[in-house]
Parts: sequence; C-alpha cells; structure tokens
Amino acid sequence: MRKISMQEVERHNTPDDCWVVINDKVYDLSTFQSTHPGGSEIITDNAGKDVSNLFNEVHPKDIVERLLSPDACLGFVDEETVDPAKHTVAGKEKAPSRAQQHVLEPQAAGKTEGQQWQKPPLEAMLNTFDFESVAAHTMTEEGWGYYSSGADDEITLRENHTAFQRVWFKPRILVNVKSIDMTTSILGVKSSFPLYFSATALGKLADDEGELAISRAAAVNDVVYMLPTLSSYSLDEMLDVRQPGQTHFAQLYVNPKRERTIEYVKRLEAGGVKALFVTVDAPQLGRREKDMRNKFTKTTDVQKGDDVNRSEGVARAISEFIDPSLCWEDITWLKTITTLPIILKGVGSGLDTVEALKMGCAGVVLSNHGGRQLDTARSSIEILPEAVAALNGHDPSWRSRFEVCIDGGIRRGSDIFKAMALGASAVGIGRPVLYSLASYGQAGVERMCSLFKEELTMVMRLMGTPSIADITEEHVLYSNLMTHVPAQSRDHLQLDTYEPLRPAARLK
Amino acid sequence: MRKISMQEVERHNTPDDCWVVINDKVYDLSTFQSTHPGGSEIITDNAGKDVSNLFNEVHPKDIVERLLSPDACLGFVDEETVDPAKHTVAGKEKAPSRAQQHVLEPQAAGKTEGQQWQKPPLEAMLNTFDFESVAAHTMTEEGWGYYSSGADDEITLRENHTAFQRVWFKPRILVNVKSIDMTTSILGVKSSFPLYFSATALGKLADDEGELAISRAAAVNDVVYMLPTLSSYSLDEMLDVRQPGQTHFAQLYVNPKRERTIEYVKRLEAGGVKALFVTVDAPQLGRREKDMRNKFTKTTDVQKGDDVNRSEGVARAISEFIDPSLCWEDITWLKTITTLPIILKGVGSGLDTVEALKMGCAGVVLSNHGGRQLDTARSSIEILPEAVAALNGHDPSWRSRFEVCIDGGIRRGSDIFKAMALGASAVGIGRPVLYSLASYGQAGVERMCSLFKEELTMVMRLMGTPSIADITEEHVLYSNLMTHVPAQSRDHLQLDTYEPLRPAARLK
Amino acid sequence: MRKISMQEVERHNTPDDCWVVINDKVYDLSTFQSTHPGGSEIITDNAGKDVSNLFNEVHPKDIVERLLSPDACLGFVDEETVDPAKHTVAGKEKAPSRAQQHVLEPQAAGKTEGQQWQKPPLEAMLNTFDFESVAAHTMTEEGWGYYSSGADDEITLRENHTAFQRVWFKPRILVNVKSIDMTTSILGVKSSFPLYFSATALGKLADDEGELAISRAAAVNDVVYMLPTLSSYSLDEMLDVRQPGQTHFAQLYVNPKRERTIEYVKRLEAGGVKALFVTVDAPQLGRREKDMRNKFTKTTDVQKGDDVNRSEGVARAISEFIDPSLCWEDITWLKTITTLPIILKGVGSGLDTVEALKMGCAGVVLSNHGGRQLDTARSSIEILPEAVAALNGHDPSWRSRFEVCIDGGIRRGSDIFKAMALGASAVGIGRPVLYSLASYGQAGVERMCSLFKEELTMVMRLMGTPSIADITEEHVLYSNLMTHVPAQSRDHLQLDTYEPLRPAARLK
Amino acid sequence: MRKISMQEVERHNTPDDCWVVINDKVYDLSTFQSTHPGGSEIITDNAGKDVSNLFNEVHPKDIVERLLSPDACLGFVDEETVDPAKHTVAGKEKAPSRAQQHVLEPQAAGKTEGQQWQKPPLEAMLNTFDFESVAAHTMTEEGWGYYSSGADDEITLRENHTAFQRVWFKPRILVNVKSIDMTTSILGVKSSFPLYFSATALGKLADDEGELAISRAAAVNDVVYMLPTLSSYSLDEMLDVRQPGQTHFAQLYVNPKRERTIEYVKRLEAGGVKALFVTVDAPQLGRREKDMRNKFTKTTDVQKGDDVNRSEGVARAISEFIDPSLCWEDITWLKTITTLPIILKGVGSGLDTVEALKMGCAGVVLSNHGGRQLDTARSSIEILPEAVAALNGHDPSWRSRFEVCIDGGIRRGSDIFKAMALGASAVGIGRPVLYSLASYGQAGVERMCSLFKEELTMVMRLMGTPSIADITEEHVLYSNLMTHVPAQSRDHLQLDTYEPLRPAARLK
Repeated sequence: MRKISMQEVERHNTPDDCWVVINDKVYDLSTFQSTHPGGSEIITDNAGKDVSNLFNEVHPKDIVERLLSPDACLGFVDEETVDPAKHTVAGKEKAPSRAQQHVLEPQAAGKTEGQQWQKPPLEAMLNTFDFESVAAHTMTEEGWGYYSSGADDEITLRENHTAFQRVWFKPRILVNVKSIDMTTSILGVKSSFPLYFSATALGKLADDEGELAISRAAAVNDVVYMLPTLSSYSLDEMLDVRQPGQTHFAQLYVNPKRERTIEYVKRLEAGGVKALFVTVDAPQLGRREKDMRNKFTKTTDVQKGDDVNRSEGVARAISEFIDPSLCWEDITWLKTITTLPIILKGVGSGLDTVEALKMGCAGVVLSNHGGRQLDTARSSIEILPEAVAALNGHDPSWRSRFEVCIDGGIRRGSDIFKAMALGASAVGIGRPVLYSLASYGQAGVERMCSLFKEELTMVMRLMGTPSIADITEEHVLYSNLMTHVPAQSRDHLQLDTYEPLRPAARLK
Repeated sequence: MRKISMQEVERHNTPDDCWVVINDKVYDLSTFQSTHPGGSEIITDNAGKDVSNLFNEVHPKDIVERLLSPDACLGFVDEETVDPAKHTVAGKEKAPSRAQQHVLEPQAAGKTEGQQWQKPPLEAMLNTFDFESVAAHTMTEEGWGYYSSGADDEITLRENHTAFQRVWFKPRILVNVKSIDMTTSILGVKSSFPLYFSATALGKLADDEGELAISRAAAVNDVVYMLPTLSSYSLDEMLDVRQPGQTHFAQLYVNPKRERTIEYVKRLEAGGVKALFVTVDAPQLGRREKDMRNKFTKTTDVQKGDDVNRSEGVARAISEFIDPSLCWEDITWLKTITTLPIILKGVGSGLDTVEALKMGCAGVVLSNHGGRQLDTARSSIEILPEAVAALNGHDPSWRSRFEVCIDGGIRRGSDIFKAMALGASAVGIGRPVLYSLASYGQAGVERMCSLFKEELTMVMRLMGTPSIADITEEHVLYSNLMTHVPAQSRDHLQLDTYEPLRPAARLK
Repeated sequence: MRKISMQEVERHNTPDDCWVVINDKVYDLSTFQSTHPGGSEIITDNAGKDVSNLFNEVHPKDIVERLLSPDACLGFVDEETVDPAKHTVAGKEKAPSRAQQHVLEPQAAGKTEGQQWQKPPLEAMLNTFDFESVAAHTMTEEGWGYYSSGADDEITLRENHTAFQRVWFKPRILVNVKSIDMTTSILGVKSSFPLYFSATALGKLADDEGELAISRAAAVNDVVYMLPTLSSYSLDEMLDVRQPGQTHFAQLYVNPKRERTIEYVKRLEAGGVKALFVTVDAPQLGRREKDMRNKFTKTTDVQKGDDVNRSEGVARAISEFIDPSLCWEDITWLKTITTLPIILKGVGSGLDTVEALKMGCAGVVLSNHGGRQLDTARSSIEILPEAVAALNGHDPSWRSRFEVCIDGGIRRGSDIFKAMALGASAVGIGRPVLYSLASYGQAGVERMCSLFKEELTMVMRLMGTPSIADITEEHVLYSNLMTHVPAQSRDHLQLDTYEPLRPAARLK
Repeated sequence: MRKISMQEVERHNTPDDCWVVINDKVYDLSTFQSTHPGGSEIITDNAGKDVSNLFNEVHPKDIVERLLSPDACLGFVDEETVDPAKHTVAGKEKAPSRAQQHVLEPQAAGKTEGQQWQKPPLEAMLNTFDFESVAAHTMTEEGWGYYSSGADDEITLRENHTAFQRVWFKPRILVNVKSIDMTTSILGVKSSFPLYFSATALGKLADDEGELAISRAAAVNDVVYMLPTLSSYSLDEMLDVRQPGQTHFAQLYVNPKRERTIEYVKRLEAGGVKALFVTVDAPQLGRREKDMRNKFTKTTDVQKGDDVNRSEGVARAISEFIDPSLCWEDITWLKTITTLPIILKGVGSGLDTVEALKMGCAGVVLSNHGGRQLDTARSSIEILPEAVAALNGHDPSWRSRFEVCIDGGIRRGSDIFKAMALGASAVGIGRPVLYSLASYGQAGVERMCSLFKEELTMVMRLMGTPSIADITEEHVLYSNLMTHVPAQSRDHLQLDTYEPLRPAARLK
C-alpha cells in the first residue's frame, strides 16, 4: 500500500471525489457515501479530512473490512505530511448533549438564560420511562434522533406499549406467594427471569462502553444478551467481556454476499453463541422522520436536487448490508451451514409463525422492529394470541420444539406477565437498555433490569402465581385487544364553546 | 358592441346595479353576483371598477362565455375615458400571504414584532403534512380558507385520513422483495403507481401556473391528471401543456343547460381525454364555515338583512353551473353523447356502486368530496369493503369491466396500500397536490409525488408484496374500521382534580 | 287589606322573619324562601326590601297568586312611608353581562386592562355554537349558570350532541334534488320543517321580551312553540302575541294540588293550545353544580350550618310545584279532564314508550331534559331505535295514532335528518332558542332557525332525499351508537416522556 | 430496663447502628429500619434522636409492642441527661401543608410572590371531587403522596371511577317517588343507605383526630365504619368513641405470627365488632411511584448503592406484618378461632367469589385496593357482573347467605345506584373519607356523606325506584362496560397541521 500525503487527501473533498483518513488509512468513499445508512452528509461534509474520531465514536474497527470492498482502501497517510496545527480532524470535540445544547442556546429552547438541567440521582429512577426522560437530556441530538424515532407517524411505536394496556388482569387470591420464582429457560438457556436484551445497533451513541457495558450488565442480572450485527464494538471485543457462565445469543442480518454470512456465522459458533436470531423484518430500513428532520434543523445551505439522491439513497443503501431478496429458501440454506438453533426475528402473523415451525426453526420473535419499520403494523402482544392459536391448530405439541418470544413496548413488569399469560416464552427489550445506558452507563442498565424484576415479582405475587409455570391465559382479559382507536378528531366547535366544570380548588 | 365610458361604468356601483370591466369588456353582473360561488361580496365590493386583475387571478378567460348569458356583456370600455391616475383597478396588489399578514400585524397573531417566518427548503419536506404546514403560510387567507375548509364540523374531513389508521397491517416475511414493481393500469391507462391527481378547482389560488404546473408534474411522475371543470386555466391551455405520452382524465359537472355539456364533452374528446369522471356528490355546494368565517373577520360594516340573501344565495347559486336534478336517466343520456368511459365520482354506498355497474359505467370513485360536502359522511376507505362486497354479490366477474377508485384523506404510501388491499384500483389525491403546489410550485408537486412513491415502495417491500397484484385483503386487519369514536367529553372534575404522574426529567 | 309602613317592613329582615314588597304588596316569605327553586339566598339577602325590580326581571305577575298561599300577602305598603331617598329597592341596577363583568374586573379574568369584548354582527352567526359563544358573553352570570348547566358531571349534557356523531351517513346519488320539501306535520299540525321550539323556563333571563320574542320568531319561521309552565310572562301574555295561523303546544307540570292543574288545563284549552306535553322526567330538579357553584364565588361570608338546610331545601322545594307522586294513574285521570292530545315529555326507554301508547297517549318525547336531571342517562338519539323497535314489536300500525319526538343536543341540520332516519316525527330544541335569544333577541332566534333550515335543505339534497318521507333508516349507519367511551385516563408517563412529531412549519 | 443517657443514644446515629427515643424509651431500630413500610429514610435520617413527635404524628402508642420484637427496647432514656437546649427532637414542627409550602417557595410553584391560597367554606363543597381538590392543598406532601397515589401508571386508580361512566341509565317514569327509602342492611346490620366507610390506614395523616373523627362522623350519618388494622389510633381508642347503637366492622391483615392474629381477633370480638374483612389482595404492598418520587424531590445527597437496599426493602418488609403465604386453608383455620362472619376483601374474579361462598364466608368485597396494588387490574364494577353470574351459576339461592360488596372509585350517588343495579349489597368508600377529613375534619366527613345521600335520593327518584329493592339490572345498560380504551396515541402530524374550527366568540 502506498503512502499518501495529507495534502493529496485534502484535494479530494467533494461528494463525487471523496477521500477520508480513518485510523491512518486513506479510503475513497466516493461510491460508498451515497449508501451510508447514517446518511451521506456525515461523509461528504468531511471529505478530505481525517475522520477517525467521528468514525470511532460509533463504529467498530473491523467494520471497514466487513463492509467496504478491498479496493476502497488507497493506502496509508504519510504521517510526515500531517501538520498538527492545521490538520483537520473531524469530530475532535464530542457533540454536546441535548441538555448542554439547550443551555448554550437558551433562547432556541425558550429557556431563560442560566437555567441548567440537573441529572437526577440514579436512585430516583423508578421505571423505564424515567430513564428515557433522562436520556433525552444526556444524549446528543443525533443519537436521540436515531434511537427514539419510529416509522412514519410513529403510531406503531406508541401502540407497542399502549396495546399492553388493553390486556387487563384477573388476579387470584389466597395463593401462597411467599416465595416467587421467576427463573425460566429461553431456548434451553437458563435465565433469572423471562427477559433478554435484544440486539440494538450502535451502542456507542449511548455510552462510550456501548455493547460492552450492556453485556456486563446482562451478566450481573443473569439475563441473555443478543449480540447485534451493527454494533459499535467488534464481535471479538463483545465476546471478550463475556463473564463466566454468561450466555449470548446473536442477531444475524443475512448479507447479499452469502460468503460473508457464512464467515460471520462461523465466528459466532466459534465464539460460543447459543442461538441465531435472523432479522426478517428489515429488507429495507424504515423511514424515521424524527431522525430525518434532524438534518434540516442543522443544515444552513442546502443544494437543490440533493433531495432526490438522498431520498432514494436510503432505499439503494440497503442492498449493501442486508439482502432484500432473502426468502424461505435461504432459511433452508442457513440450516445447512450451522447447527445453531435458528429463530426468525420480526414475524408479524400467525401464518408465518407456523411456516417457521414447519421449516424447522427453533422459534420466532413476534416483533415490528420497535415500530421503526412499518407504521400501523400490529403490536407484538396483539399478534401473540393469533400466533399461538395458529400453532395449536397446526400441531398441539409444538411447545416441545418451538418457542415464541415477543419484543416491542415492554416497559413494565406487568407487560412481561401479560406476554407470558398469552403464551410467550420470553420478552426482548431494546430501547430501555439503550436509554438506561445513555443516562447512567452500565449501572443504569443494571438498575433498569432490577426494576423490571422487582415489578414482575410484585405482579406475580399479587396475581397469585408463584412461578412462571403458574401463569395462564385465565389470568388476563384481552377481549378488546384488537380494538384500535386511532387519534380522534376533536369536536372543536362543541368543545371550545362548552365551559368546563371546575373543582372547588386547584393547586395550580 | 358599443363603446362605454369608464365614467358610466363607475356610476353602476351598487349590488342591484353592478357593472364591472373584465379584460376591456363591460359586464352587468347585477343578477349574477348573488349566485357567484365565490360569494357576492367580491363582486359587489368592486362594483363600478375594472376587476380584470382580480378576475384573472383565479379564472380562465373563457369562463365568462361558458357561464354568463350573452346579454350580460354590454360592450367595450372606451379606453380613452380611462384616466390612468384615478382609474380604479381592483386587486392591483397581490393579496399578502398568511405569513406576510402575520408579520404586518404581529400583535393580531400574538407574535413579538419583527419575527418573520422562514420557508424551509424543499428538501425538508418529508411527507404530505409538511407541505400543508408550509402552504398554511404561503397562501393567502382566501385561498387557504377555500382549500383547507370542510363541511360543518369538519368531522368527515379529518375522518378521511384517520379511518386509514383503523386498518392495520399483517406483514408477511421472507418474500424476495429486491425489486418492487408499483406500475399498474387505471381504466386501461398505464401509471407508474396506483395514484392519480384528482380534479381540484381554481389552481391559481395556489400558484400562478395553477393547473399547468400540476399537469407538468403529473407527466414527470408518470401519473394521470384529471382535468377540473372549474379550473383557473382554460381547457385548451391545460391540453396545450400535455407532454408526449401523457394521459388526461377529465372531471365533468353536468350543466343544467345540456347543450353546454354536449359541447364540453366534444371538446374533451377532441382533446384526447381518456375518461369522464362525472361528479355526482355535489348537487349543492357544502357549507364550509372556515371559509365563510373569513368574510367576517375582514368586513367592518355589515348591513342588516344582508344575511338572509347571502345564506340563501349559495343554495340558489348552484343551479347556474351544476344541475341538482341530475339523475340516473341522465347517465343513460350521457352514454349516448360520448364513447368515453364514464366513471361516477362521489359514490357513497355499495348500492349505488352496483347501480353504476348495472348502468354500464366503467367505474366509480368512492368519495365524500374531500369532506367538503356532507359532514359525518363515511370515509371512502370505510365504504370500500361494502362496495366490493356488493359488487361480488351482484356479479363475481365485475372486475373485468368495472373499477373502484377512492379518494379523500390519502396522506401516506401506506394509505395507498390499504386501499389496494381492500379492492381499489387506484387512489386519487387532491389537497396534497394543491398544498405542494402552493408551497413550492411544480417542484413541490413532483417531490410530493416522489415521497408517495418512496413510501409505497417501502411499504410493499416490508409487507412482502413485490407487485401490486400481490396485495390482498389478507394483508390487512380492518375489523374495527367502522368503530367511529367521536370527540369525547372530558371528565373535567375527575381529570382536573387528579394530579398526573411525571417522569423523572423533562426537556421542557 | 291593611296598609303597612315601609319602616315596619324593613324590620322583618332575617331569614326566619322575612318580609318583602312586590309590586306594592307586602309578603311574608319566611316559610316560602327555603323552597324557592331559584335558591333562598336571593330572597333572604333582600329581606325587608322592595324587590319588585328583581322579581319582575324573571317572573310573570300572576305567579305569586299561582304559587303562594293567600295568607302570605299581608297587605299594601303605605306609599307615604316610603322615603325615595333611602328607599331600598333591590335589583335596581341590571346585573352586568359576563363580558362587562370581565372588563370591570380584568384581573380576575386574567385579562389586561382595557380589553373589551366586541359582539360580532348577527350575520357572522353561522351555526348554533356561535350563538352559544356569544350568549356566554351577553348573559349575566346567573342566567348563564341557569341555562348552560347540566346534572352532575355534565356527561349526558355533552353526550346529547356527541351521540349524533356516532350516526354516519350513507348518501344516495343521482336522485333529482332540485326542489327540497321539508314541510311536515307534527301531531296533525303543519310545520315548515320537523322541528319545534320546546318549553324552556324563565325566558327573561335571556332577553326582556322573553317568551314573547320566542313566540314571534316561531311564527316567522312557521314552527310550533311549546309554551313553558315556568315562563317569565303569564300565559295570557304569551297567548296575546300569537300570530294569525300560529299554533302553540303547551308544557304541563302536574301540580300536587290537582285543582290548580285542572284550572291551568282549562286556560290552555280556552287559549287554543293544540297539545299537552306532560313533563315526566322531573319529579325532582337535578343537581346542577355549575349553577350551584355560582353562589359561592359571590358570597363573602357564609354562616355555618347553612349548608344542611340548603342542600335539603331543593329536595323539599319540589313538592310545592311539581308532584313527585305522579304516576300512570294520573295520566288516566288527565285524560278525563281534557280532550287535548297528551304527549309524555321525558321518556327514557322503549318500555315506557309502549306503555304510553297503551295508555292512549298521542306520543312521547324521548328526552333527558337537556342533560339537566340524571347524569349518564342515555341520549335521546340512542333511545330512539329501542323505542321504535319496541313499538313495532307491540303494534306494527302504531304510526297511525302515535308519534315519537326527541329533544336534546340537536345542533345541526344533520342531527334532524338522523332523528328522522331513525323514526322520529320531529325534534325539539331548547338551548339554541335561549342562546340565540340572549345574544340577538328575536332576530337571533329567527336566524338560528333559518340556519337549521338551510343546513337541513343541504343535507337532504346531498343525501338524495327530496322530501321528509324519503328519509329512511337505510340512509344512516348507527352500528356503534351505543359505544359509550367515557373520558379516558391518560398515560401520563408514556405521553409526557414521548417527544411528539412536528410538521415542518407551523403558523403559531 | 436500664437507664440510658441521651448522649449514648446520640452516638448510635447511622443506618447500621440506629437508636432512637420514642416516648421516653430507647429502641435499637438497626434491623427494623430497612423493613419500615413508610421507608427507611425517615428512621435513618433521625438516628440518634428523640423521634416521639414524628412517631406520634401517625402511629398509635401500642404499635411498637404489636410489631417490634421485645428485645428491640433497650431501656429508658435518663431524663437528667437530656439538655433541653440542645436536645434534638425530630419532627418538632408540624410539616407545612402543600398550600403553605407553595407560598413559602412561590417560585418553585411558578407563582408570583404573596399569592396565597384561600380555603373555600365547607358549604362550597358540592361533591367528592371538591374535597379532593381542597385536601390537595391542606395536606402535607407526605400525606398527600401516601393517600393519593396508586400503583404503577395509576391506570386502575382512574379506571375505578371511569368504569362507572360506561354504565348508562335507563330511567323509568311515572312511578310514585314522593318518598324515597334508602335504608338497607349490610351483613345484617341496618344502614341509612348502602354505603360504608372502608378501612384506611394512618388517619392522622389527614387530621389529628384521625380514625376517631371518622368513627364519629359514621355515627352521625348512621353508616358502618370498618376499623383499619394500620390505624393511627389504637383499637381501644377507636372503640372508646363508639356512639350508642353504632356498629363497627373490622379489617384484618393476617399476621405471619398467627398468635398475634388470634389475640387481635379476640380483642375485636370483645370490642363488639360485627364482621371481619380479611384483606386478601395485599400479600405485598404495591409500588406507588408518586409516593416514592416524593423522597427524591426532598433528598439532597444520596449515597450510591442505597437503591438496591431500598427497592428490595419493600418486598422484604411485607413479611413483618402481612403474611404472603396466606391461603385458603388459613380461612378454614380462621373460622375455627372466631364466630364472626368472615368477608374476603380484595376479590378480583368470579371464580374466587364462588370459592369464598364454598368456604363458608359471609361475603366478598370486590376490590383492587383503590388501585394501589396491581395496575391494570379491573375495576370492581366491571368484575361485579362476572361475580354475580358465577354465583348464580353455582347456587341460585346464594343471596340467602352471602353478600357481594364493592369498593373503589365510588364518587357519585349514581355510582352507588349502578352497583346496586348490578347486584351489590353495598359499596365501600375510602379516599372520599380521607379527603373530606383532611380538608374539614369530622364536619367534612359528615357533609361528604350527606352529599352522597342527597345524590342517591335524587337518582332513585329520577330512576323511578323508591326503595333499594326496586333497583334492578333492567335499570342500566352496561353492554360496553368491558371496553377498555387506554390512553391513545395522538396523530401529531395531522393534528398539529390541522387548523381548528373556532366559534364566533369566546370568553377567553
């Protein structure tokens, strides 16, 4: 590989002729930039610069090799040509948190000068919403936009949790609930309670320790962590922090280039991972407008025509990492290259659940990808009874060789109970992990998980079900689970004319 | 025709004796003014003046001949009698946009002085709502009032879109969705995707290029444009901008004077239009109070008794242009004067859909006229299953000779998918075209249409339906589509007494 | 009758020893005050004074004789003892309107000083809600409290109109609707459209002309007015303003002293009234807390123990004017004293509707007394299908001798159509009459009624039903009319944590 | 017992070595503090101090003996060692009310300085919500947090009342309702109307007179009071204020040490209590976050690691007072130690209701513990039809030996009627008692109860049911009682883009 002067790099500073330095190597990203899932702007805005800092903030070191074609790497930067004084290193300064930003620009936030946000103590976190509310301050605008956003109108995003509130409890009394046993097994793996940390991308957007902190917190709480494909740390780094006795599952995006998938699965097997969760609900990444909107509040001058490229860019981008042609035959193929149990992650109907069973999969995760893909897709808790009924109809003994998990919207211990009652083996959580990580690091994730345990203990005790096996469909009422009431129009004339009743006194 | 001095014109300046100059001709509008669909005020307020500017702002030049009786034209104005210094030309200055108005009168808008609205770049438009929010600034108060208003309490206006949110997706997985084919044909006409631009009146209220810009944008996006009867440009002008290979449909208001309809249909046929959409839901124009309210926020002195005339005026007005006696026999007659396929636009029940089929129509558009006519009329997406069931009951092979389209409330690509799933051939859009036109001109319409395509592509991919033909009723759940929940009363005492839970931290 | 000096009167100025002067006569109201429907405060606060002005503001002159026992009148006040300088005449100044009050005390209303409310021109009134919004300004606090209030949480008050929004239209097309005929007959009386003015108490609270103005407006609009029992003008005064050809119905509260009812019915018959509407839903007046609350915002010093008397007072009060022992046998008796058709006003179930038919009544008014009596009583439009089904089940030919009307919550022409579609003969309106009267006097009532006609014309045209007889149950969808959704709890944690989507631009 | 110097006490001032003085005795609370239901902070914050004042503010004197093991008491404090000048007496000053607090710190409450809250006169209280709104001011932050909070998201807390609004009335007319008889009997005890005061803990948090005031008010209103186990006054003190002819029921938490339960039941029997309500829905205390949140708004420095102890502490704490192993066999045992009728309080399903009947219980209270235990548990009014149907299915003659009561969310007289209509014998109220006590003392409780009577009288009169026995299921419509609609997501884009209709005028 040849040595390249920094001055030469700096001359390739346009979208069509775009070189950058990443960790001392020079890359030509002229082609790649338009398919970058994080948007082409972050690359083209820094064309001709050393972007190592920006890159390392969110990406694992091995991702360049895993994703870029070998000829993208042009050589090494000649260190002698780097003038430290004028050397342009993009992303040197960490981006400010949202709370900092609002202090720096108080007027933009409608705040009086000097007001400053105080992070509450960790002990003040009482539920998952608390972590989310803190993370909204401690995260950067970009990170928050990426994690918190959902598809289109975010109807499914919110429905995911709301749907649980259409399942009501029928508690039983006078059952000895002195000791509560929440332990269970998920795909043959013991777990302290029926919950696992699902795969989520780019953990460094939440915390420098990223996936490593999540993995350690999972070990402390004795729950399984599903390693993400699009992690901020490399697979080896994630496996390295594994604690004695800890079990990992792994997420799998099937690559258009199947040999890369074969290679990755081999690494997972070698690393001792216990199950493969194949993502099947993301042949294309969803439109997340909250995230997209971010770009325009910052940008000052936008070139015309830019939009066409960008808006189609996302669609084109997908085929670089994720295969939109993935189909049932590929599952058959996948079974030939591994002995690991295969679980389909992102199933949305009873029909496909039965199909997965027929194909010899070990289970499914009913999921809509956290509301990030298809808006007005049903919540997983709503699909669950349909899936269980379909399985029962196909083969009453399915439970001996198949498991149904769900994820999306689990925010309370009671949500876990309801999923168990309707037939799930376990629930996966994503954003609660990210938000607790982003607000208090590993300690936050541990406490978040403890709160879930505490809540589930209480619910099991109050429901009269001392063990997971005691939980049955008889414990819940879900007759109007499918009653979707969308945002309603308001009768403005009537309601703005009507003068409301008032109580005798009000504090404010 | 005689020459008339401007001084003589100026003397006829009362509602009962009302002359105006339009493009150098003098008209006596004493009778006509009370039946002017845009309100008599705009005419009587300018009695005795040259109103050419006002007129040309929204009307095509041929409309006077098409609508007024020949004897309304009194002659030419004598140009020598026109004193440029004192010549009163109404509407010389363009009306200010709503954003401008609010800058000029900041206090009325509750704004601090000097604050000025900045139009976002076109690239920042991410969905149809964005265009609407921009158009609310860039349009004049009159134009906005006319486009945005709906009948009565605007319940149907809002229900139109909301109803789509009661249809939920049942996505299928592991289908090869690498290439998505959205092409389809509407009434035998190829279209890049199952959407057409429906007829909307007075395009110049949105943009000077009006219908011409819409037509050109339709060509760029390879979709069909249905030419409006009440356009701002004349039919010839609209046909003139047709691009090679572009197809037009045409809207038809049947005129009480049938010979005018015969003449108009001949012109449409000669112009190469491919289908006639006969409006059947507007024997009378609906009451749109937001629009009506506009008049009173401006008017300073109102004469007593005025009201009776005006309120009845609208009802009387209709018979000038649109025949309230139109009935099924007229459809039989219409078939005798043209070979073009006839589609009934504005059908609201399964019964009338079957009736249209029996009458030999080529199809129907289920529609409530954008919520502008009959409040609490059902949304078209709600009528769709009823219509399809009725057709199936009447003749299972109906699809070979009949098509069902819907319009009203389509704001997302997912809405198009849902309409296809429930049996529609295509969807029509109206306001999204007007709003995108009013905010960014032809480029706005193009981008709006691109966004729809982008969204539909994504939905089809995520639903596992690579082509339009793959979309079936099995892909959606619409069991509570008919659950209408109106604006609810609030339990003020309970809710104002209750102290809400709060998350640990909040950004604002 | 003896002459009494004003000085003597002034000494009887306590609740237990309470004399007042009304139109030159001296009355001892020590007993009566505790049963005054308008509250005892208004009387005891003015003990020892000349209250003629206060009295005449709302009461007819003959009410004292009709309600008080003869020995309550002690004699005439000796005019020579009245010192004009210090003579205390209660209520000399008219009470200020709510708008005036808020100008006088701007801070209490949270308004900046000097801001003053401007009444819009009558022409700006576009619907019934507009009149209500103006009346909220022009009325006094007391009048507004009395008219606008409903029972308990006012759930039924609001449900009355809201329920209509759960009935949706199924319009028919291509019907000749050139001429619309809204005329109908109610109990054999011709009416310009199927609506009548229902009886409402104390018209002077709205306007000095009170019931006289209402009666005149009814004549102008060719609708029937049901004369109230508790009117501000005497029966004779109301009958005196009857126009040629005008028809009146009359409301009847059956008095515990039956001879008074006999006498009143005779006067009604002699006066040419055409039907008796016997109020059956008010054996006790409802608790209207908005009205009750008024008293405490004004009162400065409240004596302890007062409450027990007052709260029971209302219950005791009722037996003075209205007989809580009224039962079906009394209807039998009523038929023996009059040949007028008897209609039961305030029926709330199908069972009682059939019972009314069996008893030989001419009809019923399904009603909950404008939501003023029993909170969470069903709306009349909801009861209507139950009542019609019960009648059909009892005797399919019932329509030949029986009519079903409804009242409560009719605010739109479309509401009238829906009532017709579900089987009603006519609808009654109350508050719309009072609010339009309170805001613009007789002209207001006329315009309000015209707007109803204009709206119904439009709805009938757009529904394809040129005459009242054309309206059928097939024109509406009311499958979830009985879906009562109460005010819902809000998911504060989720919703206060969630950051909402925003459109690209907003006017404010 | 030895004498201990105050100086020695003061040295034991850490969580792990924690002594306090209570009413002249010295206790070592090092172990107990972590299981204190009111939180360990209140104890550890005052380690080494004389806490008598704090203690007596909420606890009865006998509770130390009833709950602490005998060896926790170390001896008497040596009075001579107490230096009055520096003697640290915790809680000397009464905690400020919430209204006072907000005056002292106006900025924290967003109030302008000097604004002060005025308590309305008792006569202004028109319903139970009024008392709650006043209590929100007059109570301390701690007391309010304890009383007003519910489990988790407080969905059940609010559903409890809201569910009643899904039961609608079908009033009957023309029934003689001159005299209304609300008297009834509950478990054989006469009552002035079908309501009793349910047991609620720590009455002193509301008023110094606590349970004594409640008991006296019950006597005045002739209703039964169920004595709480966790009262602020001792059992003897509560029994001492019993009025001639007054009846008490008693709540029973079964203690893990059964001998303590035996002893307590004997005291109840000796005291003349007439029925035992065994609490069966609280094997563990629920998580009430509003209450938990309180601690963190006050605390300034929090030590790390504290959280784990505290959050698990609640769970461990329970076994000290309440037996989580309580089961059906214990009911059998309970019947052997007493002849009092046994009622299970906190039943949540039809199955357990029938089980209670089979076990020979005298009845059940359908309850979710005021929404304080299990969130999304169903409301008692919703369970009621299921329970009655189950009983009817088991033994149609059950009413001869079994009663079903409900509590939770009863706020209106109409709620009582609805409970009767669906088969309840009586309703219990808790918070309305506490709030009326906290706002106006005993007089408040009396008026609150009078208002319930006044409302029920009115409802029975307007429903046409002169006695309790006349009330039947036919009087209500509850077809969508089970339609749970959770908090809904809002369509932000649509609703924030849409410009609402406005009435012509508005007061503000």
